[in-house]
Amino acid sequence: MGCVQSFRDLCDRPKNTNVRVSLPVVCFVWQTAMVILFGVFIRYNAESDVRWREFRRTNNISSDIENDFYFRYPSFQDVHVMVFVGFGFLMTFLKRYSFGAVGFNFLIAAFGLQWALLMQGWFSSLDTDGKIKIGVENLINADFCVAGCLIAYGAVLGKVSPVQLLVLTLFGITLYAVEEYIILSILHARDAGGSMVIHTFGAYYGLAISWMLYRPNLEQSSRLQGSVYHSDVFAMIGTLFLWMFWPSFNSALTDHGDGQHRAVINTYLSLASTVLTSVAVSSLFQKQGKLDMVHIQNATLAGGVAVGTAAEFMLMPYGSLIVGFFCGIISTLGYIYLTPFLEKHLKIQDTCGVHNLHAMPGVIGGVVGAITAAAATETVYGKEGLINTFDFDGDFKGTTPSRQGGMQAAALCVALVFGIGGGIFVGCILRLPIWGDPADEDCFDDQFYWELPEDEESVEPVLEYNNHTIRNKNVAETIFSVEQT
Amino acid sequence: MGCVQSFRDLCDRPKNTNVRVSLPVVCFVWQTAMVILFGVFIRYNAESDVRWREFRRTNNISSDIENDFYFRYPSFQDVHVMVFVGFGFLMTFLKRYSFGAVGFNFLIAAFGLQWALLMQGWFSSLDTDGKIKIGVENLINADFCVAGCLIAYGAVLGKVSPVQLLVLTLFGITLYAVEEYIILSILHARDAGGSMVIHTFGAYYGLAISWMLYRPNLEQSSRLQGSVYHSDVFAMIGTLFLWMFWPSFNSALTDHGDGQHRAVINTYLSLASTVLTSVAVSSLFQKQGKLDMVHIQNATLAGGVAVGTAAEFMLMPYGSLIVGFFCGIISTLGYIYLTPFLEKHLKIQDTCGVHNLHAMPGVIGGVVGAITAAAATETVYGKEGLINTFDFDGDFKGTTPSRQGGMQAAALCVALVFGIGGGIFVGCILRLPIWGDPADEDCFDDQFYWELPEDEESVEPVLEYNNHTIRNKNVAETIFSVEQT
Amino acid sequence: MGCVQSFRDLCDRPKNTNVRVSLPVVCFVWQTAMVILFGVFIRYNAESDVRWREFRRTNNISSDIENDFYFRYPSFQDVHVMVFVGFGFLMTFLKRYSFGAVGFNFLIAAFGLQWALLMQGWFSSLDTDGKIKIGVENLINADFCVAGCLIAYGAVLGKVSPVQLLVLTLFGITLYAVEEYIILSILHARDAGGSMVIHTFGAYYGLAISWMLYRPNLEQSSRLQGSVYHSDVFAMIGTLFLWMFWPSFNSALTDHGDGQHRAVINTYLSLASTVLTSVAVSSLFQKQGKLDMVHIQNATLAGGVAVGTAAEFMLMPYGSLIVGFFCGIISTLGYIYLTPFLEKHLKIQDTCGVHNLHAMPGVIGGVVGAITAAAATETVYGKEGLINTFDFDGDFKGTTPSRQGGMQAAALCVALVFGIGGGIFVGCILRLPIWGDPADEDCFDDQFYWELPEDEESVEPVLEYNNHTIRNKNVAETIFSVEQT
Repeated sequence: MGCVQSFRDLCDRPKNTNVRVSLPVVCFVWQTAMVILFGVFIRYNAESDVRWREFRRTNNISSDIENDFYFRYPSFQDVHVMVFVGFGFLMTFLKRYSFGAVGFNFLIAAFGLQWALLMQGWFSSLDTDGKIKIGVENLINADFCVAGCLIAYGAVLGKVSPVQLLVLTLFGITLYAVEEYIILSILHARDAGGSMVIHTFGAYYGLAISWMLYRPNLEQSSRLQGSVYHSDVFAMIGTLFLWMFWPSFNSALTDHGDGQHRAVINTYLSLASTVLTSVAVSSLFQKQGKLDMVHIQNATLAGGVAVGTAAEFMLMPYGSLIVGFFCGIISTLGYIYLTPFLEKHLKIQDTCGVHNLHAMPGVIGGVVGAITAAAATETVYGKEGLINTFDFDGDFKGTTPSRQGGMQAAALCVALVFGIGGGIFVGCILRLPIWGDPADEDCFDDQFYWELPEDEESVEPVLEYNNHTIRNKNVAETIFSVEQT
Repeated sequence: MGCVQSFRDLCDRPKNTNVRVSLPVVCFVWQTAMVILFGVFIRYNAESDVRWREFRRTNNISSDIENDFYFRYPSFQDVHVMVFVGFGFLMTFLKRYSFGAVGFNFLIAAFGLQWALLMQGWFSSLDTDGKIKIGVENLINADFCVAGCLIAYGAVLGKVSPVQLLVLTLFGITLYAVEEYIILSILHARDAGGSMVIHTFGAYYGLAISWMLYRPNLEQSSRLQGSVYHSDVFAMIGTLFLWMFWPSFNSALTDHGDGQHRAVINTYLSLASTVLTSVAVSSLFQKQGKLDMVHIQNATLAGGVAVGTAAEFMLMPYGSLIVGFFCGIISTLGYIYLTPFLEKHLKIQDTCGVHNLHAMPGVIGGVVGAITAAAATETVYGKEGLINTFDFDGDFKGTTPSRQGGMQAAALCVALVFGIGGGIFVGCILRLPIWGDPADEDCFDDQFYWELPEDEESVEPVLEYNNHTIRNKNVAETIFSVEQT
Repeated sequence: MGCVQSFRDLCDRPKNTNVRVSLPVVCFVWQTAMVILFGVFIRYNAESDVRWREFRRTNNISSDIENDFYFRYPSFQDVHVMVFVGFGFLMTFLKRYSFGAVGFNFLIAAFGLQWALLMQGWFSSLDTDGKIKIGVENLINADFCVAGCLIAYGAVLGKVSPVQLLVLTLFGITLYAVEEYIILSILHARDAGGSMVIHTFGAYYGLAISWMLYRPNLEQSSRLQGSVYHSDVFAMIGTLFLWMFWPSFNSALTDHGDGQHRAVINTYLSLASTVLTSVAVSSLFQKQGKLDMVHIQNATLAGGVAVGTAAEFMLMPYGSLIVGFFCGIISTLGYIYLTPFLEKHLKIQDTCGVHNLHAMPGVIGGVVGAITAAAATETVYGKEGLINTFDFDGDFKGTTPSRQGGMQAAALCVALVFGIGGGIFVGCILRLPIWGDPADEDCFDDQFYWELPEDEESVEPVLEYNNHTIRNKNVAETIFSVEQT
């Protein structure tokens, strides 16, 4: 007990947001390590190496257009936009944390994708010569892996320092790679758009960290916890790029041909359906029927998450619409009822509501995937289609759909365990008072990690006057002058 | 007469913007209907179905890359960005209607594309088994169809309720699908980028609705009818994404190979030319040669509209430049002279100036298409080229270019009739006092349909003081305090 | 001497920013010239012409997907986004020059790409019939050429008139085409992403012009030289779209297959590495470890510039990381130390710091390219790979890698000479007092070339009161009212 107490005391020391030593050190050490590890391990694969022409001849590939690059590069770029602009701008909604939202998102992603290339490479792209051979598929996988950490960032947005974010990312990528290996290779589950691997894991990882870092006096920062008009418009940039490119996300790594084609259609439809039910619930639960920007910015995306696992299956167009239909409702209700509940009763402070946008739809996506897989029949898929879609080949020859459904369900549990367990572990580490995180009253404020321009419309109070807080510099000056007359 | 009078009385009842019942009901009923109709009618087509591999073998298709998906998906995503970010952000220019612009645009598009898949499917993708088989081409067509309704939204921006917009979209998509069937299938006209089918129809549909919903006292909302500095920058995001991706729009559905390639080149050139003449006219018609953001945001796009029909023809690069040249001039002059004229003398209030950006360039595009088609010769196209480009095949074998030109002209008339006629009909319906539209003095204001954040710089008057309207809360507080001293 | 003196007197006449005659005249004359020149010279090439099907048969091309369009169009669209949104929004960081940043960027690009198609066409796509045959590759080249001029615009941002920018572009494109011809065709250097051809040339061209247009009293505009909170967020849109699509930029024109694939991987990695070292240095050199938005917006892109020449070579993944590592450091240090030094001691006023983002990384890119080329061996590339990568074919059969390295170094010198020499020449022309540029105290201000909306938060002083400058109209009104009471 004394040990726990002294750990608590350690953690409760006054905060110091100066990261002038820690941030550069972590960045430099890390980047140097990456250079060395890449030097030892990473090489081009057969399709990106200069010997591709020989490879083409040897493998009777008739044209350069058969290079995987041309199948996946457009989707990769869309995923890239989702990771950097989509997630980045979605989080700019806070009135004074736009720099942190978009800037730290940028930092995490650039930091994480290098480590992801290594970690995922060791598990899945290791060649016989001990080198990891990379191509466009690895880049997409790295972006996916980073997306998990960015989801976790959403839960702790505004309450952590950049150094903590780098630690969160380092462990997050590592956990992700292990979890992904278990799910995709050992359990042989399918998870095209990562409902389980990315969303469920990422969201619970972030929520568990947020729970460990619970801030009892966060209401002291409440003046900065809302949005302003233009910050909400910025956030819509993020929403729309996520929404539009989600079909590319769910189809980026599916099978060539019908696999990519079908994943796009399913995702497109599910997302469209989500928009309508989100709008309906948002309007229904407000006294005068007004819409809430938080719902439009977030809940409209839930359909893309929930169709992630099953997007490549024969979910059927109406099946996609149904998934989207219910996710829009559940996600919006989550914002209205669940987020306040989690904060009040479970001490989980979830800045962006990732529980509503990623955790619940992710779990739904896992369940939908398990059911769809278990219900697959030769009538619908054809013998060949069943084998191709579920990859019933090699060690998994002769697997039945119902067994596959069981494996999908097991996979969901793995994602949950890794997310929650990993989050508690990393949260413990992040409570150490060495990471430069802000005090409870200084959360959601860019000024501690960013040099801010002097704005006309600064939110900071400039003057207290006659019990009024004057935030506008000009107004303060005016009063001074009027007073002097 | 009494009947008309009582209809008028009905329409002139005091306004109530509460949509808490109507909006959720419409969304839920509609989305449920979609699930059922999709269940009955919509299936994957041969290229997105899991039996694609069998189809490949049967049809001797050598590689997965021959799946139509790889020909059209990058263009589809560009079109998707135009529909959601392009149109959405283009309309954010109003100082206090950015939520409505981007949010309702999102709602309309998500709502419309589902109905479009059904309507267009019944007309063009119905298989022998009574099912509509969809693939990436249908998704593009659905986005195109939605674009027509978003153009119409531009004419009534800020003056209608979300429920009215859903009704506008429901009828708009229906009319579009019929009109498109007549133009493309019966008249056998070509309209790659939809100068007639999308732009002419959509713009006149919106203008006719706006005419039916004429608001005599709209100047009571004039304080909100302009832009602020940052809302104009947001609108430029819309402009640029429309401008950049317009070549994808005009080429998304053209023939594989040279058809898509040529449509891109023609659109790229026409748009470049439009920018220069728009800038020139904008500067020329202002006393001190200053540029007007309204022209830069809108008129620069006119060239893309006007080259829509002929983009796939042998318009020649200089031909595209000439089309863009004149459209830039005409569209900018439209903003300067025609929009005020329409409002004053024809009682057509056109918020975004869709008459200048879509209606006139659309008609020009139809005329350019008719002339280019009529002037097509075997010398330029070659015998095979002529047949392929104009699809002189099957029932239309042996059609002459001059006859095709005539059909193109007839198509333009059909688009006009459907646009104006449909708009008047739907406008009548929208005048009913049950849709929750705002009063004349409450137009262009997000606060009636959106929960707004409390901003420092609210535009709403906080206080009337000494005959001055004080809009800034801080200033109001200051005065109070100063008074009290 | 008398002549020089009278030239100086001429140049020092009072400024007049009215461009009502000059801007429209330049635009109209220029666009008319383009129509005529395109009519005489520009035609579709074999892949965009309607006779493509005959061409396919003649050349035994098995499928439409082999049309170059499908290899390059997705990259083209990404480059297009970089040119219009990337460069445009990157420059919106100034508090009152966002219209000029994004609007003039738009104008320059639309103006320049037409002239680029002609100039580059005469040098490289001239057919035996005296016509320039264009396809998607020419569009990409035109966008690249325009990028050079937009980089130059970054150096003079806010200090020149739109007419001066058009003159800068006209000469810039012309110089670029000649320089490119010397580098790529005569010296036979490789420069996939244009480290030398685009970035080195463009940056020194702009810096030399800025030197010629030195404004000794620019500090009179210092109130407008910074950013505000939201303008920095807008600029991040530009940064991110540049960063995300840079792999497409560097791979847009490389060889089909492994060439494009490898260029993407190298650029992706170099950029990721740059982000970390830029953040590290930015934090390290600020007292409290805070990050500077200027560094995050700009220095994070340096890795993409520096890997431009070598992106298609076998630079190896760790090689790309190393290049990015050092460029992030050098570029950020440039912003901290070099930009103030250049302004103070060399009289080069570099608004956007293009010396740090394009000039230095461009030169580094040229050097890295020369070393990588000289160090190429048959062990790594294979005999066939060496020939394909460096195009040791035709007149250049039998060139050795070391000789190629020399040619790369010579190419870098050519880019420098054209940039500096051309900039001095064009700067001379732009000093003439006929172009409508603003006075020193009126720089960085949109109001001289744009009709501005009346904002609540205007930056312009509305009133001088008790020695206070009151910029807020409401505040001014308040004071009036309070005074009157």
